[in-house]
Amino acid sequence: MSSAGAPPEVLQYIEGHQQQFIDRLAEAVAIRSVSGDPTRRQDVIAMGDWLEGQLQSLKVSTQRVDLGFQDGQPDDEPLPLPPVILSRVGEDPAKRTVLVYGHYDVQPAERSDGWNTDPWKLDQNDQTGRLTGRGSTDDKGPVLGWLNVLEAHNALGLELPVNLRFCFEGMEESGSDGLDAFIADEAKKGEEGYFNGVSCVCISDNYWLNARTPCVTYGLRGIVTFQMTVSGPAHDLHSGMFGRVVHEPMTDLAILMSQLVAPCGKILIDEVEKMVPAPTDEEKKEYEKLDYTVKDLDDAVGAHIGLSDDHGELLMGRMRYPSLSLHGIEGAYSGPGVKTIIPAKVTAKFSIRIVNPQTPEKVVDAVKKYVEDAFAQIDTKNTLTFEMLDAGDAWVADNTHWNYQAAIRATEAVYKHTPDLTREGGSIPVTLTFAEQLGVNVLLLPMGRGDDGAQ
Amino acid sequence: MSSAGAPPEVLQYIEGHQQQFIDRLAEAVAIRSVSGDPTRRQDVIAMGDWLEGQLQSLKVSTQRVDLGFQDGQPDDEPLPLPPVILSRVGEDPAKRTVLVYGHYDVQPAERSDGWNTDPWKLDQNDQTGRLTGRGSTDDKGPVLGWLNVLEAHNALGLELPVNLRFCFEGMEESGSDGLDAFIADEAKKGEEGYFNGVSCVCISDNYWLNARTPCVTYGLRGIVTFQMTVSGPAHDLHSGMFGRVVHEPMTDLAILMSQLVAPCGKILIDEVEKMVPAPTDEEKKEYEKLDYTVKDLDDAVGAHIGLSDDHGELLMGRMRYPSLSLHGIEGAYSGPGVKTIIPAKVTAKFSIRIVNPQTPEKVVDAVKKYVEDAFAQIDTKNTLTFEMLDAGDAWVADNTHWNYQAAIRATEAVYKHTPDLTREGGSIPVTLTFAEQLGVNVLLLPMGRGDDGAQ
Repeated sequence: MSSAGAPPEVLQYIEGHQQQFIDRLAEAVAIRSVSGDPTRRQDVIAMGDWLEGQLQSLKVSTQRVDLGFQDGQPDDEPLPLPPVILSRVGEDPAKRTVLVYGHYDVQPAERSDGWNTDPWKLDQNDQTGRLTGRGSTDDKGPVLGWLNVLEAHNALGLELPVNLRFCFEGMEESGSDGLDAFIADEAKKGEEGYFNGVSCVCISDNYWLNARTPCVTYGLRGIVTFQMTVSGPAHDLHSGMFGRVVHEPMTDLAILMSQLVAPCGKILIDEVEKMVPAPTDEEKKEYEKLDYTVKDLDDAVGAHIGLSDDHGELLMGRMRYPSLSLHGIEGAYSGPGVKTIIPAKVTAKFSIRIVNPQTPEKVVDAVKKYVEDAFAQIDTKNTLTFEMLDAGDAWVADNTHWNYQAAIRATEAVYKHTPDLTREGGSIPVTLTFAEQLGVNVLLLPMGRGDDGAQ
Repeated sequence: MSSAGAPPEVLQYIEGHQQQFIDRLAEAVAIRSVSGDPTRRQDVIAMGDWLEGQLQSLKVSTQRVDLGFQDGQPDDEPLPLPPVILSRVGEDPAKRTVLVYGHYDVQPAERSDGWNTDPWKLDQNDQTGRLTGRGSTDDKGPVLGWLNVLEAHNALGLELPVNLRFCFEGMEESGSDGLDAFIADEAKKGEEGYFNGVSCVCISDNYWLNARTPCVTYGLRGIVTFQMTVSGPAHDLHSGMFGRVVHEPMTDLAILMSQLVAPCGKILIDEVEKMVPAPTDEEKKEYEKLDYTVKDLDDAVGAHIGLSDDHGELLMGRMRYPSLSLHGIEGAYSGPGVKTIIPAKVTAKFSIRIVNPQTPEKVVDAVKKYVEDAFAQIDTKNTLTFEMLDAGDAWVADNTHWNYQAAIRATEAVYKHTPDLTREGGSIPVTLTFAEQLGVNVLLLPMGRGDDGAQ
């Protein structure tokens, strides 16, 4: 790895070409590549074409990977998956090879969702210079950031200090359909595989904790989602005729729901809570050091509802403790007003964000036992079914690795500010896929701020 | 009141004209008078016309009451309310005057709802003779029962032993829109009012407890519906970023929901539960005497989930105890699968079926205090709002009144079986309106069986 920070002429070039770079981002924003909307699938594919064209104009070789058709679509209306766009920049065996992942699809956006400007037209605020548009931060902006670096080096005739491999997908906002299998297949190919020789991975698809201090991210919580169903009568009942006559599934379910998590956030499933050791004083200090305030939280959520007045505690709640959230009930009336029936079968949905050393397997076993035991304590003739829906492991990387050291120095060079070392409370599943399949260090290098409004 | 039972020639006439009566019911069933479906409003009005025509063909004077337009409709698409059809039969001041209420509108019905036959074509089963069709029991059949009696007396040149007043509405399945105001207005008119001189009221719009024993019904539970809302953040939050960071409204709401009612049906709001005195041994015996079994309940609900193995306890649960049912949550994800957000604002809906001496006012005060106190015990920064949505009083009539004695003797004459004296767990609001506005004894005289499948 070369020394941190780009050569001064590269920085100069970038400063001097801001408007061209903004114009290129505006072109990307204008393509409505919403992967979750089948009627926009051709726009997603068009965005892949556009990105491939941009790479080709920078004189790097590209490769399109056809992932076939999307699962779960009707046979007579097959929905093609957008291509994975691959590209290799440099093959010097003396250099390290950085795999850069990004995605060119976006979340839906409507003016009615609260946008002050047209989401598909990149807006530059006259006063602040701030850029606003769908995908500008998640994740078209970060992807184009890499292209800007390439362009600067090309234009100046400079060599990059590393080899680069790009892997840009178009289905990230829709479960990365097809990508996991592609990565696993390539990894299996060994020396023939696309990822052979990759020294580390860099993913820019998350955000700073606030709008002040950059960060470099080395951990993610995992997630396990559950549903528990209480079934009673064969059909919904009239509450006038059957209220206080039968065991009502909602009564039993409310008791189970109330026994999962305390208002303070503590998980009431003892075994799950105890899997995670309490933080040492030293660890606590690491979180205290991070730039975050109660006001940051209040601003982000629009209310003063934090579980603590200590910012370190808040950050540990997000990053290194497990959490349990109740999401809702299926099978009961959920509209406005009231429908006075006794629902026959009701299903509560909840999820647990897990951290090491928790694993989905251990957590599922403990939750299942706890819920079934709790239900057995309820004097009811109704029946319970318990299911795990989905699971993903937690991830923590070695943040003393050279990959991290380089990212920290690069961040200091650009922002004149030492980045905070943070973990994220959510999941970015592709992170784990790369870490597991390639066996190399993975780095999350956020380019967006905490107030970018990414979704 | 004349002696119980109709003269033998009337019974003969009715036996001899079964097919005509069935044909007339088939005509009524074929008119899709679904009051809840605005696109069927002309059918409801057509049904009112048809009924008025039938009454006129029986040579009784009729009167149509125009109730104006339905509330809550767009100004440019006014929806006319179907007419109330009134009729007077006899004005003999020496006789008692019975006001008969019924309704000619019906609930929706689709084959896909589980009908084995076309709901709009009265079906007569070849083996059992049983009639099936929408409205055959609720409430077109009972209404036409009165017309059959009139026809028999007319044809035979017999005088009725009482004066009759009919009041047939077309909006019962949609909240009796306009009827309450009409009844109150007429009652206020005193001697000029339509209901002047009414001695008692008879309503045939409920059902036997089973398919074996007729009943006469003297009580109804009231109902109060509530919603309680816990609000936290200004918008839904990502559970990865904010799980174990903020107080989650769903966590708090689940605790409140779990504190309202026990799995055994007991209301945990002590003050509400204690308003109703425990049954005396004598009262218990009254319920034990009624013809009802655990198997009746199991058959009705399709599962063995009764709160007791004692049929008297089950009936007291339905008829003379208050009940509390949880109906659902608004504001949280309620679809299939799971959406792992923290909902910002969640509202639980529940209702309490009340019995004398409970009143909506007393119950609302006690529930509000209980829920607010329970919320204050939760260590949370979220906020609670509590609302009563709707309320109706409980009703119990004097079942030793001559109105009841006559109904009991008439039932014995027709079914050769002494009816059970029962109460209903649900509400029939017009019952209270008549009782309160006219100040006379009101009787519920079911013509349908417990297995009629009324909705």
